[in-house]
Amino acid sequence: MAVLDQLSASLGADKVLTDEASLQSRRHDYWFLSALNEFQGRNVPTPLCIVRPINVDDVVAAVNICREAGVALITFGLGSGVCGGVIAAPESVLLDMSSMDSVRDIDPINMLASFDAGHNGGAAEAAVAKKGMTIGNFPQSIDLSTVGGWVATRASGQFSSVYGNTEDIVYSIEAVMPDGSVVNFGKAPRASAGPDLRHLMLGSEGTLGVITGVTFSLRRQAEKRVSQSFYAPDMITGLEAQRQIVQQDWAVPVMRLYDEVESARQAGDHHRDGYSVLMLVHEGPASRVDLEVGEVRAIALEAGLEEAPAAITEGWLEHRNHVPSWEDLLSKGLVVDTIEISAPWTRIGDVYNEAVAALKSVPHNLFGSAHSSHVYRSGINLYFTFVAQPADETEMAQTYLASWNAVLEATAANGGGIAHHHGIGRVRKNHLAADLGDTGVAVLRAVKSALDPEGIMNPGVLLPDA
Amino acid sequence: MAVLDQLSASLGADKVLTDEASLQSRRHDYWFLSALNEFQGRNVPTPLCIVRPINVDDVVAAVNICREAGVALITFGLGSGVCGGVIAAPESVLLDMSSMDSVRDIDPINMLASFDAGHNGGAAEAAVAKKGMTIGNFPQSIDLSTVGGWVATRASGQFSSVYGNTEDIVYSIEAVMPDGSVVNFGKAPRASAGPDLRHLMLGSEGTLGVITGVTFSLRRQAEKRVSQSFYAPDMITGLEAQRQIVQQDWAVPVMRLYDEVESARQAGDHHRDGYSVLMLVHEGPASRVDLEVGEVRAIALEAGLEEAPAAITEGWLEHRNHVPSWEDLLSKGLVVDTIEISAPWTRIGDVYNEAVAALKSVPHNLFGSAHSSHVYRSGINLYFTFVAQPADETEMAQTYLASWNAVLEATAANGGGIAHHHGIGRVRKNHLAADLGDTGVAVLRAVKSALDPEGIMNPGVLLPDA
Repeated sequence: MAVLDQLSASLGADKVLTDEASLQSRRHDYWFLSALNEFQGRNVPTPLCIVRPINVDDVVAAVNICREAGVALITFGLGSGVCGGVIAAPESVLLDMSSMDSVRDIDPINMLASFDAGHNGGAAEAAVAKKGMTIGNFPQSIDLSTVGGWVATRASGQFSSVYGNTEDIVYSIEAVMPDGSVVNFGKAPRASAGPDLRHLMLGSEGTLGVITGVTFSLRRQAEKRVSQSFYAPDMITGLEAQRQIVQQDWAVPVMRLYDEVESARQAGDHHRDGYSVLMLVHEGPASRVDLEVGEVRAIALEAGLEEAPAAITEGWLEHRNHVPSWEDLLSKGLVVDTIEISAPWTRIGDVYNEAVAALKSVPHNLFGSAHSSHVYRSGINLYFTFVAQPADETEMAQTYLASWNAVLEATAANGGGIAHHHGIGRVRKNHLAADLGDTGVAVLRAVKSALDPEGIMNPGVLLPDA
Repeated sequence: MAVLDQLSASLGADKVLTDEASLQSRRHDYWFLSALNEFQGRNVPTPLCIVRPINVDDVVAAVNICREAGVALITFGLGSGVCGGVIAAPESVLLDMSSMDSVRDIDPINMLASFDAGHNGGAAEAAVAKKGMTIGNFPQSIDLSTVGGWVATRASGQFSSVYGNTEDIVYSIEAVMPDGSVVNFGKAPRASAGPDLRHLMLGSEGTLGVITGVTFSLRRQAEKRVSQSFYAPDMITGLEAQRQIVQQDWAVPVMRLYDEVESARQAGDHHRDGYSVLMLVHEGPASRVDLEVGEVRAIALEAGLEEAPAAITEGWLEHRNHVPSWEDLLSKGLVVDTIEISAPWTRIGDVYNEAVAALKSVPHNLFGSAHSSHVYRSGINLYFTFVAQPADETEMAQTYLASWNAVLEATAANGGGIAHHHGIGRVRKNHLAADLGDTGVAVLRAVKSALDPEGIMNPGVLLPDA
């Protein structure tokens, strides 16, 4: 029996879509290069079918059918990934997890909330917010992504500097492995029971199994929130102020430093020529927030920053999830993307300077800029933005890839990590050895081969081309 | 050439010990059952030889020789493990990592410190303390364990409730894989570059490779430390107070609740009959500690606790790392151990009551008690202690194993995790499925087979008997 017939027989024909509109709408994620291909009318393949599971049994059946037939199974959440983690191959089965979207349980005593993996992130946050709690994970894509996608890509939220990234917030992960077995990794508040197998799924980008359920360790909603802003004479001074704050053990959930180019956009009327802007958001018990605001302000002033209107940070809070659409930008002939990396404090200045310079040296570049958005004791991330405008539209793809290579190579050459929180997908996969080394890539390949010997799980992603 | 000759030729004869004293001294870790076997004069095997590497090349050579010869390689740190993670088999090579113990680098700007894996934990802490920093990991065994051992077992420190456990403090891990390749997992402050491969080594207990280097993300030493203590009318009330404190987002590095039996020992003259004792240690910037002490006290009193002399906590701080020797206890005919588990808040009371009852029902039990020592938003650990005294010394081993089974079964039956921070070793391996499920065990087995196909790395540990 053909795969399509097997899927229909096993899951029910209503869960197996083959109409053109369905196939078209889920051919790829939100990677710029996929949007460019489409915009320029190049042939973009559609999958064999879309499978819309409603429970774990459906996923098990789909995995088993694909494995036995040797057909690629590509897991799709809500398609907000920006690294090419999802591109349907012509004969592949695309597993659309957004149809599996129940709230499983919200437990206010243990402060745990469990969701089907296809549950919308913003809806998940809203569900726990009703009970006075928060997941604490606020990626910019929160309303466009699934909780399973957060796990698959190791997503970072805007409040990560204290609340942590996805891996710090996840309590347990349910998944269907390539052999069709159902696993549940993470049973206890903390364990020393062998390697933490949740980390096989965190960052796996669909290559090691299908994440079907996620349980988060929640927080109480903050009693108080206070914003403040500062002007920094340059990025280096602003970075140093952030280092002082975090290393002096003050826990500020949001710390974002915009370089001059980006400050002009972020601060609007409050922008001061030649200055960077540092935005801070404090949250927690009221008395601690009040104390922290003053202590942190003192550190910032001591580090050479000047107070700026809190309205700058408040403006960011309000508009923080607005992103222009690729279509708008493409229609203007612009090649645009963001690239997030991280590096230790002593290297981040060189990464910033060299990556911006490298971006600007890419032919047709209009500008390259950066801001930081996630802070650690050991270092910080940077989020580069580039805009280029080739006169000849056939040069758009190569301009795009040259810009990515410019930033990743400058980062790796200066000791940074090439991926802070968007994942590897296709855009970074041939740079993976810069982070893991060739031997680390070999280890990951060995694990992949052991768990998915038929290679059916989202092939072409994460691991470098052989 | 025989393995012994190959090792001597490759590493140098001075690094390959075969004298009886050396072989005897490293036959096993600090597992009670190994001590009992020795005490009762049963035959305890010695390894073929002890290899004492001084650098990564030595480890690579030893791994390659053992793999090619199909000889078991057992990694040994300082032997403070308490779960039977190290027992030398007669023809095995025992790799004594304590000979590889350099401080590699201490970086005060990025607040990173790198050590050879065999470096003593207490010495590592002292090295960074000289520069005003702390690793923040204070297992009771700190002076008897290596930093590599912390990683291999996912050790927890006494200040973990804020500073985190080993996995939260480790920045990167260097290891020699079973195929002889050298990996370095963890390059950046944070990464979304596929699964976090550090977690293959964290908790691997020597079964997936040899950890050769560890880099920690440090903290500045706390500006101020304040201790306080409270009486709780019972464990359930004390646990609930701790839940309120952590879930109201107060970050107290040390929170320890002793039941009445253990409070009598811990509180000494300050013990109050029928009461449990809660000890808190606050650390951090002075102004925040001052605030936190008052806010947390208010929560504790509101939860029904009464203030107790801070001297109780100060006494614990002073004597916290004293442990009686097995030999002293064995010479009195006592069977003794501690067993640490964790569970969500809603289950921990049942785990406590049922595990203590189960311990007391083991023949020859004198007492069973517990304290908590590590707190999470989702739950808490418990650290059980049992003492038994079989009249017939041939019943000591079975009394020991029955006590362990009593606690692990009561924990698993009430939804808890069977291992909080001592690892699996041999004493828990046949219970591993209680945490991972049979499917999870199969995943771990698949990863083990992929990375160590010859099965040379510390066989007999971690994975359940087939």
